[in-house]
Amino acid sequence: KDILGPSKFDRDIYQEVAVPGVAIGLAWTPVGGDILFIESSLSPGKGKLTLTGNLGDVMKESATTALSFLKAKAKQFGLKPEVFDEYDVHLHVPEGAIPKDGPSAGITMLTTLTSAFSGRPVKPYLAMTGEITLRGKVLPVGGIKEKILAAKRAGIREIILCKDNQKHVEQVDQEYLGDLQFHYVDRMDEVLDVALSGEVAPSFKGTVAVN
Amino acid sequence: KDILGPSKFDRDIYQEVAVPGVAIGLAWTPVGGDILFIESSLSPGKGKLTLTGNLGDVMKESATTALSFLKAKAKQFGLKPEVFDEYDVHLHVPEGAIPKDGPSAGITMLTTLTSAFSGRPVKPYLAMTGEITLRGKVLPVGGIKEKILAAKRAGIREIILCKDNQKHVEQVDQEYLGDLQFHYVDRMDEVLDVALSGEVAPSFKGTVAVN
Amino acid sequence: KDILGPSKFDRDIYQEVAVPGVAIGLAWTPVGGDILFIESSLSPGKGKLTLTGNLGDVMKESATTALSFLKAKAKQFGLKPEVFDEYDVHLHVPEGAIPKDGPSAGITMLTTLTSAFSGRPVKPYLAMTGEITLRGKVLPVGGIKEKILAAKRAGIREIILCKDNQKHVEQVDQEYLGDLQFHYVDRMDEVLDVALSGEVAPSFKGTVAVN
Amino acid sequence: KDILGPSKFDRDIYQEVAVPGVAIGLAWTPVGGDILFIESSLSPGKGKLTLTGNLGDVMKESATTALSFLKAKAKQFGLKPEVFDEYDVHLHVPEGAIPKDGPSAGITMLTTLTSAFSGRPVKPYLAMTGEITLRGKVLPVGGIKEKILAAKRAGIREIILCKDNQKHVEQVDQEYLGDLQFHYVDRMDEVLDVALSGEVAPSFKGTVAVN
Amino acid sequence: KDILGPSKFDRDIYQEVAVPGVAIGLAWTPVGGDILFIESSLSPGKGKLTLTGNLGDVMKESATTALSFLKAKAKQFGLKPEVFDEYDVHLHVPEGAIPKDGPSAGITMLTTLTSAFSGRPVKPYLAMTGEITLRGKVLPVGGIKEKILAAKRAGIREIILCKDNQKHVEQVDQEYLGDLQFHYVDRMDEVLDVALSGEVAPSFKGTVAVN
Amino acid sequence: KDILGPSKFDRDIYQEVAVPGVAIGLAWTPVGGDILFIESSLSPGKGKLTLTGNLGDVMKESATTALSFLKAKAKQFGLKPEVFDEYDVHLHVPEGAIPKDGPSAGITMLTTLTSAFSGRPVKPYLAMTGEITLRGKVLPVGGIKEKILAAKRAGIREIILCKDNQKHVEQVDQEYLGDLQFHYVDRMDEVLDVALSGEVAPSFKGTVAVN
Ligand SMILES: [Ca+2]
Ligand SMILES: [Ca+2]
Ligand SMILES: [Ca+2]
Ligand SMILES: [Ca+2]
Ligand SMILES: [Ca+2]
Ligand SMILES: [Ca+2]
Ligand SMILES: [Ca+2]
Ligand SMILES: [Ca+2]
Ligand SMILES: [Ca+2]
Ligand SMILES: [Ca+2]
Ligand SMILES: [Ca+2]
Ligand SMILES: [Ca+2]
Repeated sequence: KDILGPSKFDRDIYQEVAVPGVAIGLAWTPVGGDILFIESSLSPGKGKLTLTGNLGDVMKESATTALSFLKAKAKQFGLKPEVFDEYDVHLHVPEGAIPKDGPSAGITMLTTLTSAFSGRPVKPYLAMTGEITLRGKVLPVGGIKEKILAAKRAGIREIILCKDNQKHVEQVDQEYLGDLQFHYVDRMDEVLDVALSGEVAPSFKGTVAVN
Repeated sequence: KDILGPSKFDRDIYQEVAVPGVAIGLAWTPVGGDILFIESSLSPGKGKLTLTGNLGDVMKESATTALSFLKAKAKQFGLKPEVFDEYDVHLHVPEGAIPKDGPSAGITMLTTLTSAFSGRPVKPYLAMTGEITLRGKVLPVGGIKEKILAAKRAGIREIILCKDNQKHVEQVDQEYLGDLQFHYVDRMDEVLDVALSGEVAPSFKGTVAVN
Repeated sequence: KDILGPSKFDRDIYQEVAVPGVAIGLAWTPVGGDILFIESSLSPGKGKLTLTGNLGDVMKESATTALSFLKAKAKQFGLKPEVFDEYDVHLHVPEGAIPKDGPSAGITMLTTLTSAFSGRPVKPYLAMTGEITLRGKVLPVGGIKEKILAAKRAGIREIILCKDNQKHVEQVDQEYLGDLQFHYVDRMDEVLDVALSGEVAPSFKGTVAVN
Repeated sequence: KDILGPSKFDRDIYQEVAVPGVAIGLAWTPVGGDILFIESSLSPGKGKLTLTGNLGDVMKESATTALSFLKAKAKQFGLKPEVFDEYDVHLHVPEGAIPKDGPSAGITMLTTLTSAFSGRPVKPYLAMTGEITLRGKVLPVGGIKEKILAAKRAGIREIILCKDNQKHVEQVDQEYLGDLQFHYVDRMDEVLDVALSGEVAPSFKGTVAVN
Repeated sequence: KDILGPSKFDRDIYQEVAVPGVAIGLAWTPVGGDILFIESSLSPGKGKLTLTGNLGDVMKESATTALSFLKAKAKQFGLKPEVFDEYDVHLHVPEGAIPKDGPSAGITMLTTLTSAFSGRPVKPYLAMTGEITLRGKVLPVGGIKEKILAAKRAGIREIILCKDNQKHVEQVDQEYLGDLQFHYVDRMDEVLDVALSGEVAPSFKGTVAVN
Repeated sequence: KDILGPSKFDRDIYQEVAVPGVAIGLAWTPVGGDILFIESSLSPGKGKLTLTGNLGDVMKESATTALSFLKAKAKQFGLKPEVFDEYDVHLHVPEGAIPKDGPSAGITMLTTLTSAFSGRPVKPYLAMTGEITLRGKVLPVGGIKEKILAAKRAGIREIILCKDNQKHVEQVDQEYLGDLQFHYVDRMDEVLDVALSGEVAPSFKGTVAVN
């Protein structure tokens, strides 16, 4: 049924995302698509944002934009506004030997930051790609076909894309898509509704406001 | 009647600008004009200005100049002077993959900043282009014909331009302009009179002085 | 009488300089001289100096030198010394698309800064060019002939130059000079005596010491 | 029995690592593998991280990532969270004449930092190589064969590697491995379990929490 | 008697150096020697050192070294140690269009800084050239012949040089030297003994300790 | 007896090193060895380290490493830990026109810093060369033969080298070494035992702990 063979990474991917602060993005490279873990971690501090993982300027700007959006919407997302002054945030993209750039990891970055601050892990087997704007709108990105194939190979079951990318999915042969489920979104609120549907992690105590 | 076809983006553009802090600029590119969303967002902070969106040095200087003008005229615009110390401002121009530069987004940047600080959304279907100076004078810019055509294509209904650009509009075939309405201005005050004519957004509470 | 034709910019120039903080410099470019507005603006702050307008390193150093001179001479110029800690200063040179460099805007920069801090507008129809030193001495600069012609074209009526540039003026055909009035100076004190002869602006309240 | 000859460096290596804050990494160079001492040292301060030893950007990012992980896991590792504000950390890689880069020293860097903060020396005759992620996962690296041979030559007795690097070890001729012992790990916890098995150094007083 | 003609700059030079903080250095350029005014000026502040005048890195380091020496020897020179925290110092070398570099202005820089802090003007008609070290030793520099000729042309009457440069002076034809007086020194103390022999300027009130 | 001729610099060198904070290193250059004065000086401040003398990045890192080692070992060396917060340190290498780089001045830098902080002058007629590590280990360096000849020419009587450099000394013809005395060391403690054997300078009052 699945011409790409068994999803041998399934178990690994599940384990990765069980901890709050980790989300899976989709990257386009000259030799095909790839999945991209994006990690965020908090430590007591003064609100500094650290970015590592051999990131280009545009990708760093995506992270900055994501954090500004989260700060401006803190209350709406149930976060205490003061947490942004009391914690340092580090966002890292592993495989430091590979240079990475472009705006398409924007929604993954915001998801991972929101996950870290809220203590809610990202849904397993889920990947996403899309540019984020400062007002939370999701913009379409390129390389959709290659990214979908890479996600499929890695055992991903659900993908979040910008509505404007739906047409690119429809151009991919159904045979390759298998039972991949797509979520088409216009705004970050919809991304987070899909991605952070789970409970706050038991070990988590901290940055979420008690309503 | 309209040789450019239906304005299929109308609805989208209206939605975008309904939130305070978003304004539409006009850009010239080697392959024609384009519209350019410019977004500003506040979060509690210490007065830091963050600029993202793959902006060149001249464009960053425009944003700096716009913010200085707004600070110097805070009282005149009904803003509490202390807000510039109590909030961080982030100005972002989406589509991070595209490098952007030049001074012509100056008046759009100041409009978006004023909108964000005052809580008053920018008038819908409105675009603008013009360099801003530190004393609030509006200077003419290039690429007027291409910019007008792009605005028309995107469903824009009104455009703000420097008075010294009026002659360039008059060189454009009336057939292309349709019912586009032009506002020719000399100073930023006139830009803001046109752009921020609406009410303070209901969700807004914050940086405006109670007179 | 005036072979350069009517001064069609007269009215504009007068309007520009009516506000404290704006002065007119003279620039040399490969295609001739040009006038150069230089703007300074204050906002409540901590003494930061911001420089914009596509300025090269030497031109930025001129502004830094001008501000240091003004700080060291604060009392002599009737300024409260503490204002330099309580305000941020932004100095901008419009037309951001054009790179600008060199030390010859030094005396214009100091004039515009002094005007902004003292609330006294610069005399209308006045332009100037000259390097400034840290001890307030005015040094001669190049391109005098081209600068004079540009000033004349723009409706300038008086020009301040370094005494050592007088010989270059005398080499210009009298026919081109018309009724242009020249002020030859050795020190910044003389520049300010000519340029800031007017009253403190009515709207101004602030940085000047009451004697 | 050992075709590489006697381990003439044994004694030296033991002496080096007896002090907390020193660990041995494995490096790949165009002319073969090499061992790499990595040193961390604390001094009373404000939480500054200093990195020296002619390190490239990717290697510096590894150190930053290692420190963020340690901060986020401070309690789990028995460290008082406030030590990261009360001490400056300096991480140095000797032989400053040789430029060094890449992510493969990540797990060694985290080991040396943890050793310095906890006062527990690293196990003698132990070397390691592997990329670290922000969530403590260990990633595979290249040059395994050359690194193993260099470790053997230098008298190393145990090596920590990522589980995904086991296949590369199995490709090395057993004759070269001698009695080298390998520890294959998935997460930093396992690295530290192997590397920091000893007691807190007698001279150490300071950053560890009393449980 | 003087084959270089009358010293037409005499009067100018005397006027320049009458104000504390100004000293005359000697520079070598591809087209001959030149004199170089070096200016230092204080303003109330927090101990910041600003360097302008199109200076290269080595020349900037000379100024930094000079200031450190002065700080370390504050008491010996009668300066209150706290002045270095209470004033900002700006050191400027006029003629910003000309790039300048090298260590040979070191002793002039220290002289001008000491003059500014102590309120004692530099002796008129005096020039100097020499590298300074952190412990106040004066090192020899190049281009002695060209520098002497430039000093003579400009009306300089006394020159301070490193003892190790005496042999280069002796190689210059006596005819060119006229009645130039040379001071050969080993240490900065000797430079200051010659250069700052005058009284504290009447207008000065401030940074000197009352013994 | 001494084929290199009389030591005409003897007296000078003795004078230089009589003041705490000055030590003599040995450098290798394309045209032979050279001696290198390294100077450290303290002034009241906040713990800033300033490095001048046209130093490359690796040489700057050596100084940073030396200072970190000294901070971490403050008590062991009889220094009050708080001095590193209360003084600024400036380390300068004279002859600013010559670019300098490499790690071989490391032990000289640490010696000069320790001398400055402890008030103990460095032993006269002593030179040294060697890389320093963060844990105080001394590493071997290159150019030993050229460095020894330069030291001999300059009147140096004792040289400190890493034990691993002994073999390079033994390759030098005994005829050139004369009565030069060598100290071979493994750790910085041994360097300081040789170099700082004298009394605290009489003029010194300050940073040493009273036991
Ligand atoms: Ca991959
Ligand atoms: Ca859409
Ligand atoms: Ca577009
Ligand atoms: Ca106009
Ligand atoms: Ca112009
Ligand atoms: Ca003159
Ligand atoms: Ca090695
Ligand atoms: Ca695995
Ligand atoms: Ca000159
Ligand atoms: Ca000498
Ligand atoms: Ca030398
Ligand atoms: Ca050894």
